[in-house]
Amino acid sequence: MRMGNRMLEEEKVFKDPVHRYIHVRDELIWDLIGTKEFQRLRRIRQLGTTFLTFHGAEHTRFNHSLGVYEITRRIIEKFEGRPHWVPEERLLCLSAALLHDIGHGPFSHSFEKVFQTDHEWWTRKIITGDTEVREVLSRMGDDFPQKVADVIEKTYPNKLVVSLISSQIDADRMDYLQRDAFYTGVSYGHFDMERILRVMRPMEDQAVIKYTGMHAVEDYIMSRYQMYWQVYFHPVTRSAEVILSKILQRVKALSESGYSFRYPPVHFEGFFSEKPLSLSDYLELDESVVMYYFHMWQKEEDPILKDLCERFMNRRLFKYVEFHQEHFMNEWSRLEQLFRKIGIDPDYYLVIDSSSDLPYDFYRPGEEEEERLPIHLIMPDNRLRELSRESDIVEAISGKKRTDHKLYYPEEWLHTPGAEKEKREILHILQAHPGKTETEF
Amino acid sequence: MRMGNRMLEEEKVFKDPVHRYIHVRDELIWDLIGTKEFQRLRRIRQLGTTFLTFHGAEHTRFNHSLGVYEITRRIIEKFEGRPHWVPEERLLCLSAALLHDIGHGPFSHSFEKVFQTDHEWWTRKIITGDTEVREVLSRMGDDFPQKVADVIEKTYPNKLVVSLISSQIDADRMDYLQRDAFYTGVSYGHFDMERILRVMRPMEDQAVIKYTGMHAVEDYIMSRYQMYWQVYFHPVTRSAEVILSKILQRVKALSESGYSFRYPPVHFEGFFSEKPLSLSDYLELDESVVMYYFHMWQKEEDPILKDLCERFMNRRLFKYVEFHQEHFMNEWSRLEQLFRKIGIDPDYYLVIDSSSDLPYDFYRPGEEEEERLPIHLIMPDNRLRELSRESDIVEAISGKKRTDHKLYYPEEWLHTPGAEKEKREILHILQAHPGKTETEF
Amino acid sequence: MRMGNRMLEEEKVFKDPVHRYIHVRDELIWDLIGTKEFQRLRRIRQLGTTFLTFHGAEHTRFNHSLGVYEITRRIIEKFEGRPHWVPEERLLCLSAALLHDIGHGPFSHSFEKVFQTDHEWWTRKIITGDTEVREVLSRMGDDFPQKVADVIEKTYPNKLVVSLISSQIDADRMDYLQRDAFYTGVSYGHFDMERILRVMRPMEDQAVIKYTGMHAVEDYIMSRYQMYWQVYFHPVTRSAEVILSKILQRVKALSESGYSFRYPPVHFEGFFSEKPLSLSDYLELDESVVMYYFHMWQKEEDPILKDLCERFMNRRLFKYVEFHQEHFMNEWSRLEQLFRKIGIDPDYYLVIDSSSDLPYDFYRPGEEEEERLPIHLIMPDNRLRELSRESDIVEAISGKKRTDHKLYYPEEWLHTPGAEKEKREILHILQAHPGKTETEF
Amino acid sequence: MRMGNRMLEEEKVFKDPVHRYIHVRDELIWDLIGTKEFQRLRRIRQLGTTFLTFHGAEHTRFNHSLGVYEITRRIIEKFEGRPHWVPEERLLCLSAALLHDIGHGPFSHSFEKVFQTDHEWWTRKIITGDTEVREVLSRMGDDFPQKVADVIEKTYPNKLVVSLISSQIDADRMDYLQRDAFYTGVSYGHFDMERILRVMRPMEDQAVIKYTGMHAVEDYIMSRYQMYWQVYFHPVTRSAEVILSKILQRVKALSESGYSFRYPPVHFEGFFSEKPLSLSDYLELDESVVMYYFHMWQKEEDPILKDLCERFMNRRLFKYVEFHQEHFMNEWSRLEQLFRKIGIDPDYYLVIDSSSDLPYDFYRPGEEEEERLPIHLIMPDNRLRELSRESDIVEAISGKKRTDHKLYYPEEWLHTPGAEKEKREILHILQAHPGKTETEF
Repeated sequence: MRMGNRMLEEEKVFKDPVHRYIHVRDELIWDLIGTKEFQRLRRIRQLGTTFLTFHGAEHTRFNHSLGVYEITRRIIEKFEGRPHWVPEERLLCLSAALLHDIGHGPFSHSFEKVFQTDHEWWTRKIITGDTEVREVLSRMGDDFPQKVADVIEKTYPNKLVVSLISSQIDADRMDYLQRDAFYTGVSYGHFDMERILRVMRPMEDQAVIKYTGMHAVEDYIMSRYQMYWQVYFHPVTRSAEVILSKILQRVKALSESGYSFRYPPVHFEGFFSEKPLSLSDYLELDESVVMYYFHMWQKEEDPILKDLCERFMNRRLFKYVEFHQEHFMNEWSRLEQLFRKIGIDPDYYLVIDSSSDLPYDFYRPGEEEEERLPIHLIMPDNRLRELSRESDIVEAISGKKRTDHKLYYPEEWLHTPGAEKEKREILHILQAHPGKTETEF
Repeated sequence: MRMGNRMLEEEKVFKDPVHRYIHVRDELIWDLIGTKEFQRLRRIRQLGTTFLTFHGAEHTRFNHSLGVYEITRRIIEKFEGRPHWVPEERLLCLSAALLHDIGHGPFSHSFEKVFQTDHEWWTRKIITGDTEVREVLSRMGDDFPQKVADVIEKTYPNKLVVSLISSQIDADRMDYLQRDAFYTGVSYGHFDMERILRVMRPMEDQAVIKYTGMHAVEDYIMSRYQMYWQVYFHPVTRSAEVILSKILQRVKALSESGYSFRYPPVHFEGFFSEKPLSLSDYLELDESVVMYYFHMWQKEEDPILKDLCERFMNRRLFKYVEFHQEHFMNEWSRLEQLFRKIGIDPDYYLVIDSSSDLPYDFYRPGEEEEERLPIHLIMPDNRLRELSRESDIVEAISGKKRTDHKLYYPEEWLHTPGAEKEKREILHILQAHPGKTETEF
Repeated sequence: MRMGNRMLEEEKVFKDPVHRYIHVRDELIWDLIGTKEFQRLRRIRQLGTTFLTFHGAEHTRFNHSLGVYEITRRIIEKFEGRPHWVPEERLLCLSAALLHDIGHGPFSHSFEKVFQTDHEWWTRKIITGDTEVREVLSRMGDDFPQKVADVIEKTYPNKLVVSLISSQIDADRMDYLQRDAFYTGVSYGHFDMERILRVMRPMEDQAVIKYTGMHAVEDYIMSRYQMYWQVYFHPVTRSAEVILSKILQRVKALSESGYSFRYPPVHFEGFFSEKPLSLSDYLELDESVVMYYFHMWQKEEDPILKDLCERFMNRRLFKYVEFHQEHFMNEWSRLEQLFRKIGIDPDYYLVIDSSSDLPYDFYRPGEEEEERLPIHLIMPDNRLRELSRESDIVEAISGKKRTDHKLYYPEEWLHTPGAEKEKREILHILQAHPGKTETEF
Repeated sequence: MRMGNRMLEEEKVFKDPVHRYIHVRDELIWDLIGTKEFQRLRRIRQLGTTFLTFHGAEHTRFNHSLGVYEITRRIIEKFEGRPHWVPEERLLCLSAALLHDIGHGPFSHSFEKVFQTDHEWWTRKIITGDTEVREVLSRMGDDFPQKVADVIEKTYPNKLVVSLISSQIDADRMDYLQRDAFYTGVSYGHFDMERILRVMRPMEDQAVIKYTGMHAVEDYIMSRYQMYWQVYFHPVTRSAEVILSKILQRVKALSESGYSFRYPPVHFEGFFSEKPLSLSDYLELDESVVMYYFHMWQKEEDPILKDLCERFMNRRLFKYVEFHQEHFMNEWSRLEQLFRKIGIDPDYYLVIDSSSDLPYDFYRPGEEEEERLPIHLIMPDNRLRELSRESDIVEAISGKKRTDHKLYYPEEWLHTPGAEKEKREILHILQAHPGKTETEF
């Protein structure tokens, strides 16, 4: 087996609609892309259920991972020769950028919530376990896979390297904002990345931004803010997400109760059986497999599983109202009672979903699972200043967590004949909290 | 059940990255989009295996169908009030535009070739058979579904209506060129559609183009020409297509020979068993189902099926050389013999693939399965002139069929130890016909 | 003479790089565009001296005026048939939109400051005085020109009509943000205008925004904020503006002091002589005339006029430092003294320039010369809410005036031989207030 | 004085709407841009009178020259380290690219035709004469200015260097096609420049194209073809050009006949007086000076000069019909006679204008003044093939000169009272040759 990296004889390129071209000169990178674990990312959508809201958003994590790699490559190109930048870290950075999402499974968000799994744990396993990815990485030395995993987990000692992949302005975020905007077709998500790359400077512990680029960074923060509320937390997407989670919850409950499946959930069993999921089993799971099961389960006997799968496959989603805990306090048990009375199981059909975002944070003292470095400007006198101290706009939104609660339910079932009185009462309660029941682009 | 169409209270829109917004005002259209047969198009990629070449091309026929609808809607908006345009045909046109691809199955091209099926036949079945689509269409009258099918099949008497959906410059082509260019990221595929719509005029038998718009149409024809050779016939895409066809061929052969599958091809059986495929079985087939099987068949015992599926899932494609029949004449049987000798079945691993395109045709007398109306200009003196008689460029490429033959094979197997002499001879023969063995964007 | 308006036989279009096409169906509008007063706007740049910073920004007010017309046309198209919209106001709106900038002279900002003239006063004169514009407008009735002037001056009784042309979200601003972003090439200035037009609703006193469009409006406000600081107040542009103002000031001073010009400022005399400028004299002034004089004055004997003109023509601009009044308090008179000592007239060569912007204001009680209506959202319950009460981001920047003071001076003169001691002292004082002396995109 | 070139401490950039950023690292280039001769290009429009047809096309030669520089810089970046490329030629190439249009005067086309001047001659004078440009260039050695001039004049021995600036696919054309498309807003003019740069290879005598890039080059050739007919030869632009030429012709005739000008054409005299124009006089001429005169001459007594200037300033252009010499043969003298009879001087008001383009030429043996190298592909076997031998499309249009003749005249004068009989006859003759009298985008 070949050891070390070699430059390719001729640079390879991928045509990319977001960055125009993705350039690969290192055989190591080329071979990582060719591994089956990386190719599997073609079968995992970048934005989960968002394609049911924005039909253009059918792009995958394969797509995004190449983009993060490319942005990192361009950052490093500009860092070459500058102080603080260690040229030997180049391939480590590029590998970590390319592989940072390798552990994602299908519809990660819902799977992780329902099955208590964690894509970051799988990322480490794929990078350091018995995989083609590890085999390719090992060419660079036995400890190289571990170093790549450390960068992704933010435990790598050189924090500058870590900050390129995970900080509040990293290659990951810069790619997904632009890519998701491109594929959904929304007007947000644009910012002047070329300029940001021009004003990025390597420092001891992180990449920082020359003060002359502050406005470009403000624009990037605002893009992120808009994308969250316009795309990532779109109520229709969340409605699909709610249904997806309830399918998984139902499958688990049926399995545990000994229900006899017509199409047994073979690929899911590792999640709820005694025997834990093996790496090779995990790698078999992708969105086409999940969709296959949902497809089949439309023919199951269990009416809840059957109904939820039909809803998901045919996009017959739940409607929603704004949910403010204080308002519903008195009425919540009444609502559940009414649902039960008319034969609708509120565990599956009356669902509260909350989303919240912290568009930018200068300092989050430990309580957050995903702590990210704040952005620092390098001023004319060479001091560093945290962004929100210089920018009015960023200061205004910084540290402000905005949360949005919605209540999802199958509205069309409340307009059918039978039990009209109860249904009227349900609708009456819900309509007292109208919120924005209509979604319009 | 509600009869006829109703205008929606408030126009609905879909955000579309290509046309910005897709506007729906008619309840009929809204409800057609909501049928499960139409939602199924979300699970069928617009460009088949192209995503293995251009990673951005993950868009679906759902996406494209909405686009064709939207372009047709804009054309009709401009036709309103002009002579020859019959306002009563509006909903018929829009429905046909939306549904023109409804019969497509997964990876249609390969399936149709191997299994002798035909998406146009299924289109008619879905529109006029026992489906949600037919049920919605029937609101407009019992004969409405049939009329929609007739428009799509080009047998509808009003040829102007037909020409909007299928001519050499129709809503279908205008959408796919732009959409495929957008998602692949190539620079071709752009033309000034807004201008073309401005200069389109309804006439007795077809939509024609005001002569002042000739250059915009030339540009459109050139876009089409470029897209064919740069995207649609890309040799890497065809390599994946070759493997896909060979998987299907193998499954069929194994089934017929009584091979005992670990994962039996339940969903495919209708294609090769006695009992023909039912409409509901056909509708169950989509790309996630196909991918599921390919995924599973990586664990079959049959080495050919297993290998081909691994190749497809992990993008380990065949290499290719240019194939000119005359050159290979003497060597072909030798090549097959050598393949057999080193234990590679040439039926599956030595494959000739041909592509050919007729970028524009003024008149194709019947021999083509897909005959399309030529483009006519309306001149200052109101006479009609066929486009290629006015345009030098179009004349230059018109009627000229360009064909490209390639020979695909698993090159990496020719560099392994064992049988070196035979492998050298094979490589020698192939390398005498180098063609363009490298693909670069 | 023809009276009233007529529809053109065939719609006319202008190709516009920002809005793609500008559509004209009314003969009235077509003829207004053809008047010599409107054609004159081709010779007045939209962004004054900005082309010296952003070389792409060579676009004119002609360009922008057509854009404002087009946006207004699209708004009205969507208003047709809605309550509160009076169809009879259509041509009035369109005419006001087209003509709102007709009174602008060359480099308005500097001319108005130095010569105490006012483009709004000239706008009224051109619309109601002895001009081709008035002649065309009069076809719609004798009071029509006056009504157009009233709309532009915001005194027209129907405030809805006024709000389309001048509010905090009007056709004027929507055009210039997009157009200036397009021509400068900056990444800011983009927002989803199509969506804003979709959610705009006519109300009694103003156009309001449906709450579902709030995020699009936030994005628009942020674009405006960014454009101000990145483009409109760019320090290099202001440096050119400073020089321009000083040229005008010098010409005025020389004229008043009886200096004998080699090239007398014939076209400027109306500004500072006894006899006031006539309308026809004003209309003769455009930027090519001004540039002609600056060109010629490079050969004047007066060294200050000559030098300033050479600087302007050849882009030899002043450098700048941040200016904080408190810091300079003690040193200011010393600085002036030193300048005089080394023979540089501080009246022309030591210039403080201030810019300030109020990105959005909910209520500005009368003190501002240019008071603009705040933006209102129409909520689900049909109440109106002022934007900053719903939007965190807008609230954060609303009412906050940001001001920026800079001190401009000819730095290269401080590095020449002679009087080194004084020059060193000057540089020492200036360098104590470094600010951002470098400008980088 | 500093000798040689120095790298700037920090790279400077210009924001450019076409290439995003223009990068300058060499002090030599930075200083050339700062010369007054180069700054003068800001006052000369790139597309002459085209802004009267496409209002967006107000961009200047300054703009374009920076673009050509930037493309050349990018080409060289890719050439570094390849065989045939001589790194020492870098600054020579960049300087020639930047300065290739430095000799252009205002509305060059018309001036050159009427006054028999030649911008190429002035280019050489500016580069090698007594100018700031020459002074800056001389830092690189005494013969450097001459070498720059030689590259521009195509006499420099290293033909590879020449080919970057002037061949059938050079930095000049690649910039202007994209730039003119951008500013006019037309959809043509786009091609994948990034790809072309990737497949360009230095060879002994020219830059050639790797065969894999053939389609991108085809697309470029088609863009050029479309831009010629849609933009550069637009009949409305030519109408303005006709008027401009007639103004110059009239001024010359009046001067020669001793007419006493109210506003004497001081700046033009060098063109038609005994004493030839000096370099410094030539450099004083720019479009604001020309426009100033046209402005003033609207008040001349000579009715023809006055009328033509009013037409130009207020865009009251001539109408046109198609002109086919054979058809008009018999009627031409009758037409002139009739014009004279009704008091319109046919020398100024009955003008034939011809345009012709050769979209691509494989070989033009000497007869053309502007001979350009054909494009060569480098094939898999390393042979060179001239493009049209490989590309059907290019072959189709190659060597085919298309010519278009139009007859321009003041149509509105033929609809006034008086001499109706003659006017009817004139209109009758003209209308027998209708052509496309209407222009629509």
